[in-house]
Amino acid sequence: MITLKLRRVAIDAYKENVAYLHRECALYRSEGFQALNKIEVRSEKGGSPVIAVLNVVDDENICRLDELGLSEQGYEQLGMPEGTAVCVSHATPPVSIRCVHKKIAGECLSFNEYMGIARDIVDNRYSKIEMAAFLVACAETGMEREEVLNLTRAMIDTGDRLDWGEQMVVDKHCIGGIPGNRTTLLVVPIVAAHGMLMPKTSSRAITSPAGTADTMEVLADVNLDPRELRDIVHRERACIAWGGNARLAPLDDILISVERPLYLDSPGQMVASILSKKIAAGATHLLIDIPVGPTAKMRSRTSALRLRKLFEYVGDRMGLHLVVVITDGTQPVGRGIGPVLEIRDVLQVLENDPSAPAGLRDKALMLAGRILEFDPDVRGGQGYVIARDILDSGRALTKLQDIIEAQGANEVPMTPGRLQYEVPAPAGGVVIGIDNKQIAHIARLAGAPMDKGAGLDLHYKLGDRVREGDPLYTIYAEILADFNFAKESAGNDMGYEIGDSYK
Amino acid sequence: MITLKLRRVAIDAYKENVAYLHRECALYRSEGFQALNKIEVRSEKGGSPVIAVLNVVDDENICRLDELGLSEQGYEQLGMPEGTAVCVSHATPPVSIRCVHKKIAGECLSFNEYMGIARDIVDNRYSKIEMAAFLVACAETGMEREEVLNLTRAMIDTGDRLDWGEQMVVDKHCIGGIPGNRTTLLVVPIVAAHGMLMPKTSSRAITSPAGTADTMEVLADVNLDPRELRDIVHRERACIAWGGNARLAPLDDILISVERPLYLDSPGQMVASILSKKIAAGATHLLIDIPVGPTAKMRSRTSALRLRKLFEYVGDRMGLHLVVVITDGTQPVGRGIGPVLEIRDVLQVLENDPSAPAGLRDKALMLAGRILEFDPDVRGGQGYVIARDILDSGRALTKLQDIIEAQGANEVPMTPGRLQYEVPAPAGGVVIGIDNKQIAHIARLAGAPMDKGAGLDLHYKLGDRVREGDPLYTIYAEILADFNFAKESAGNDMGYEIGDSYK
Repeated sequence: MITLKLRRVAIDAYKENVAYLHRECALYRSEGFQALNKIEVRSEKGGSPVIAVLNVVDDENICRLDELGLSEQGYEQLGMPEGTAVCVSHATPPVSIRCVHKKIAGECLSFNEYMGIARDIVDNRYSKIEMAAFLVACAETGMEREEVLNLTRAMIDTGDRLDWGEQMVVDKHCIGGIPGNRTTLLVVPIVAAHGMLMPKTSSRAITSPAGTADTMEVLADVNLDPRELRDIVHRERACIAWGGNARLAPLDDILISVERPLYLDSPGQMVASILSKKIAAGATHLLIDIPVGPTAKMRSRTSALRLRKLFEYVGDRMGLHLVVVITDGTQPVGRGIGPVLEIRDVLQVLENDPSAPAGLRDKALMLAGRILEFDPDVRGGQGYVIARDILDSGRALTKLQDIIEAQGANEVPMTPGRLQYEVPAPAGGVVIGIDNKQIAHIARLAGAPMDKGAGLDLHYKLGDRVREGDPLYTIYAEILADFNFAKESAGNDMGYEIGDSYK
Repeated sequence: MITLKLRRVAIDAYKENVAYLHRECALYRSEGFQALNKIEVRSEKGGSPVIAVLNVVDDENICRLDELGLSEQGYEQLGMPEGTAVCVSHATPPVSIRCVHKKIAGECLSFNEYMGIARDIVDNRYSKIEMAAFLVACAETGMEREEVLNLTRAMIDTGDRLDWGEQMVVDKHCIGGIPGNRTTLLVVPIVAAHGMLMPKTSSRAITSPAGTADTMEVLADVNLDPRELRDIVHRERACIAWGGNARLAPLDDILISVERPLYLDSPGQMVASILSKKIAAGATHLLIDIPVGPTAKMRSRTSALRLRKLFEYVGDRMGLHLVVVITDGTQPVGRGIGPVLEIRDVLQVLENDPSAPAGLRDKALMLAGRILEFDPDVRGGQGYVIARDILDSGRALTKLQDIIEAQGANEVPMTPGRLQYEVPAPAGGVVIGIDNKQIAHIARLAGAPMDKGAGLDLHYKLGDRVREGDPLYTIYAEILADFNFAKESAGNDMGYEIGDSYK
């Protein structure tokens, strides 16, 4: 048996392990390893083996003839020091690949079959292309609702699960796609001020210009360890933190890393992804927001209703109290897009500033109201009024300040990016269309959410009258390259449509 | 615009371009490039840009802060020297990804849509996971036969096409899966001795222990440039060469690099792959061999018939004279498995050695006979007899020797691997099953086709009577590690089943 010396190759290949062997290495020559072959790397000292995709190296500075290199994640996963003697063998395909082939052939998979796939993926036994095969097979019409339930369960069962020790733990989630939709930072303090437990763990932005965690980070530390989080939640009844520190439905994060570059967003995957994360995070009562609009993820009421039924089917069977609301997704919510600009909008609403964006305030009150109605003591239809009272009285602002203090205040300057450009209306008329996707794209190019001050500030919304040359929105950026990318993209497609009359 | 200096990173990531940026590089920090993002790399001097998947580097020895690294293929594709100033931008997704999504949604694609996908893939605009998405969407029930025709045409039209300047150019192809099935080395000299034009370009082994090109390489040079090939074919009426030097249906090779690790082998892909290669290689008359057996690719006559219809549908519409034969795939053909061992069998047949494997001889005569019947002067049913006359008279042997001489004889020693192990029958009885897949797997582990002498030599076939301890087959290897892998695999599953009586 040929052994090689372990070497850490300082390359981050994201969630895929890559192994590096020199082309002239005796093992490579003898094994007949083939393109994209997966190999199993095992330390002679024992421990779990690591599965990795093989790349061949022609430079001894990267990997010598007697070495086996592992990319950063693979190296960490093996958990052995450099120089450790390792053996390499052909990796046998993961057992559950048979189930992926069953799915490709159009068959339904059982819970145990989804569980097998989930375990193999979480244990890093799948390559990216194997995951892509699984996801595509499941995409679109490929999953019965019973299977979505099975996948949801498997996603929960392959990770940790939080227990807050209370009968009612509320949460909310929007399926996404609408820029500026920063209602969570209003809903959480309103609901917590009412006394409900709302431990909100959010993701960072994946494809959007700002996630809830990115935005909250302008005000407070969101990177809390699980114990801190628990203390804060029990003291303040709420938190707004990043969810990445707990191992909640880890399969979801891995699959997203393949779904996103493929632009896959099938209803089954979406429902399994959202519900598994929320249930693993301990939610008992959940409000789902499905925005509908021509440039939203759901383009028609029919598709939104179909998605709602799927959420309800899986949620009910998982014992979740689930309410789904279908909301207006025809345009961005609020004015600011990007962390600092969105925080400005949120604070204006909390401070009852008369210039606060009315759409953001209304939507937040409606959502908070629906969550408040999970409280058995709140009469159906009274939630909105209670939420408005909490907001108007300043109790929501106080509660957010308490949460910020508990998590640790951040001192991010509240100024938008130093580079600014106003996009002029090409003609006079009425705003008849705002393209959520293009607006989000420009804001991202401008540097959001990496640069907190980058993004867009919208000066006109649907139905507003503009004159030729009026600034439709301002682009803010910190870095010149980003600024130019964003301006160029706005030049190609500004994301606004001007016409004669709106509706 | 930030520019970086081009650097060749001596890593072979196979058919996927990988770009390397240092984590602290100003461009990486500002761009918000995400995991598995694709970037477009363009030289300031012009030329075609290169699309690559991004890996992040934490070691300045691999890629410095002011450098952009490209893996070997990507570097070659850009075609600029190291140090060239390059700009990097977000790659826009290939336009044809929309068609892949259409396919995922279950719709049929037109010729133009397949053409768009084919062009983007051949131009390296697809990542591996995007190709996996396309292939899975097409797999199994996913392709109408009209679409298979469209894909076949697109595969041909995105590559070169040979024209031999004759009205009849014959070829044969087996769908694979049966070890030791080395009939081509017999069929080509028989058919060419009759005067037909048979320019056989073959692949090297992909998942099998030996491809025709690997086996022929024991006797002659198979790596011929297109002009040499043309001269040899016109002089000898035939060749047996490796097809990788011509750009024939290049899409096929790229897709195979993803299909193989996914174990995808859908009928639509198989038909498009085989027919596009053959038509691009200039064949006008083609014999397809579909072996059927419990461990063959086609397990039932029904599935083989369905596949035959698909070959006929596409072949007819492409103007090909196509004959499909369904053959016995219940066990390996011949005795030897691996290049040297298979050549030994082939030479025994050509030399009319009484100990030559009868199965290999019969199958080769049957296939050659069917090809001879493409000749309008050969009466239906007379092909086999003519083929047998050519073989028995020694004219086939002479023809193969002429071809070898024309291609350039090789001096590979005709000895099997130095390490040998006989796998004993676990009990007395009759051989009632031989597992093609397991036998091929063991032969590959033993080192075939990389080590020409490695492989298996089968001593008993289906229906043969054995006593306990009789050597069922001998494993040959050159390298100890391979030898042990093969022995271990045979220990787990020898690939033979012994019972009371066969059929």
